[in-house]
Amino acid sequence: MTSLRDVAERAQVAVSTASAALNGTRPVAAATRRRVERAAAELGYRPNLLARGLQSKRTRILALLFPAPRSGFGLTEMQFATGAAEAAKERGYHLLLSPESADPIEELRHITGLGLVDGVLLMEVGLDDERPAVLAEAGVPFAMIGRTREPGGIDHVDIDFAATAEAAVAHVAGLGHRKLAFFNRAVDAHAAGYGPAVRAGREFERAAREAGLQYVGGYRPGSAEEGGKAFEELLGAHPDVTALAVMDDHAAAGVIAAVARLGRRIPEDLTLLLVLSSARVAGMFHPRLTTLEPPSAELGRIGARMLIDKLQGETQSRTQGEAKGETQGGPQRRLLPCRLVVGDSSAPPREGGRW
Amino acid sequence: MTSLRDVAERAQVAVSTASAALNGTRPVAAATRRRVERAAAELGYRPNLLARGLQSKRTRILALLFPAPRSGFGLTEMQFATGAAEAAKERGYHLLLSPESADPIEELRHITGLGLVDGVLLMEVGLDDERPAVLAEAGVPFAMIGRTREPGGIDHVDIDFAATAEAAVAHVAGLGHRKLAFFNRAVDAHAAGYGPAVRAGREFERAAREAGLQYVGGYRPGSAEEGGKAFEELLGAHPDVTALAVMDDHAAAGVIAAVARLGRRIPEDLTLLLVLSSARVAGMFHPRLTTLEPPSAELGRIGARMLIDKLQGETQSRTQGEAKGETQGGPQRRLLPCRLVVGDSSAPPREGGRW
Repeated sequence: MTSLRDVAERAQVAVSTASAALNGTRPVAAATRRRVERAAAELGYRPNLLARGLQSKRTRILALLFPAPRSGFGLTEMQFATGAAEAAKERGYHLLLSPESADPIEELRHITGLGLVDGVLLMEVGLDDERPAVLAEAGVPFAMIGRTREPGGIDHVDIDFAATAEAAVAHVAGLGHRKLAFFNRAVDAHAAGYGPAVRAGREFERAAREAGLQYVGGYRPGSAEEGGKAFEELLGAHPDVTALAVMDDHAAAGVIAAVARLGRRIPEDLTLLLVLSSARVAGMFHPRLTTLEPPSAELGRIGARMLIDKLQGETQSRTQGEAKGETQGGPQRRLLPCRLVVGDSSAPPREGGRW
Repeated sequence: MTSLRDVAERAQVAVSTASAALNGTRPVAAATRRRVERAAAELGYRPNLLARGLQSKRTRILALLFPAPRSGFGLTEMQFATGAAEAAKERGYHLLLSPESADPIEELRHITGLGLVDGVLLMEVGLDDERPAVLAEAGVPFAMIGRTREPGGIDHVDIDFAATAEAAVAHVAGLGHRKLAFFNRAVDAHAAGYGPAVRAGREFERAAREAGLQYVGGYRPGSAEEGGKAFEELLGAHPDVTALAVMDDHAAAGVIAAVARLGRRIPEDLTLLLVLSSARVAGMFHPRLTTLEPPSAELGRIGARMLIDKLQGETQSRTQGEAKGETQGGPQRRLLPCRLVVGDSSAPPREGGRW
């Protein structure tokens, strides 16, 4: 059987260099890595990862658990996955995409029981999610994109809903609006304890009141049709509303259609903000909507890096140099605000305009 | 060290059952699998996958190579990935999400050189893609979602562009339109030999002519702005056009805005079709666009199954019972048409209407 020594000899490098090139344990010049990889391929050298994994019980594989596709699963979540995969690769890890079945807890037991992965990255974390406890009990390192109600000592990265709401409110108030309505995610998101729905609702209300704006909440449309209906109800109760933030792409489409049906215009009669969506999606609406865009790929990247930091901290003492997150040595916590991307749906309110 | 026998004993099952439960080599009742997994976790039994992999040189891991995020990467590609991950799981395999670097060929050498994956699933396949040759040379089993210019003996699943174009043309002709314009993907997609752009352009022209429609092609807008401009140019040259199919979400948004600027309406003045996008995206436009939606998750699922069939065919003779694809024993080829989802952007042409 071909040994690593044979590969090193053929590639004309030291055995330690050949090992680093193939195992990703330390950086190696691209040309050198390529030479080593070619030599390995030519000699049919293959089992290094498995052998190393067997020896060290490390596979350098992370699993990203993703929920079964549901209506809310879109570009944002895709970007978590691609961001996490890229960050993993930079550190010499691989990302496994693990679909969750109807029973995510059993799923977790299955994946961790196989000994395939070194750690788990959770996403779509519920406020009362049971998965962290299962992982902690099984002794499997993990980190969260999102967070439970009280994430305490668990590594996590999430959207900073407070800062996001403040940015949205400052934008609307700066244009001269005095009343802001907010359409939250659909009802079942709240029933399932979906963190972003609960936190965004709370923070938009707080930020609006702190900025001296009147606030109208409580609407939770989950489709274009429901968005249109909610908007008509809103106008019935608050004909003086001039600004609306919507956290569901389809509901926003329904609002746009309802405004057109009423013979009114955006932004002249209504300033419309799309919350927690991508500028790419917002650009498909007419007019192009002002958006609070989450740093999705960054959330994925940071989540993966946190998990890898944790894995590497388990086998070697933490380096002192590179402090990340709020604490050093302890759990890492990061909250990132959404970015305000101003589109064509923002304008000052019409003088004395009523619906 | 804990052995499989210890696990089987604790779970009160046969060793072969414990092995099957942990390795996914044959179906095991969920309750039994759960019992075995718990026993394994309690005893700290872990290295089975690695040990088996070392012995058999099989890891039961597939890599899905995905390109670096670019403007065209959206829900469709996400659904390839989730569909492939689900199908892999059903067959006891795992799907690794492998981001491609600037040099996809080197990437491939790296991934296959690590001995981590049993096979590779390619997506975003170019007409003159070099990756199939690299994989074939390295002896790594693979399948394609998409296809090269002459996919010949390579397992692949792709969109049936001929049937898709025919469905779109039949819809438009059935409404009474006599002239169809087609906006293809952006220029750089053609420069890069992007199969869907080249094949869709050819098939829309063929299908339109065969159905006796006048056809206007050659436009390749890649943004909302370019979509609006292309539409104005189109009207300048063909003021009698009443139906338009667009293969770029953003360009479609630009067309909708341009129609509104001209004081005209969809569908009264223009029947607008969105090609190769999801009904979910189409539902965000106002009006909701008629769409030719690719069966994205199905493409991912079938691609993964083809690859697994191939991997299993290498170690055991193929079962005769379950013939899939066009051939048995040889390469599998599947083409699936897009689904026509009729929205609110389709109507008969206005009597004698001109722009």
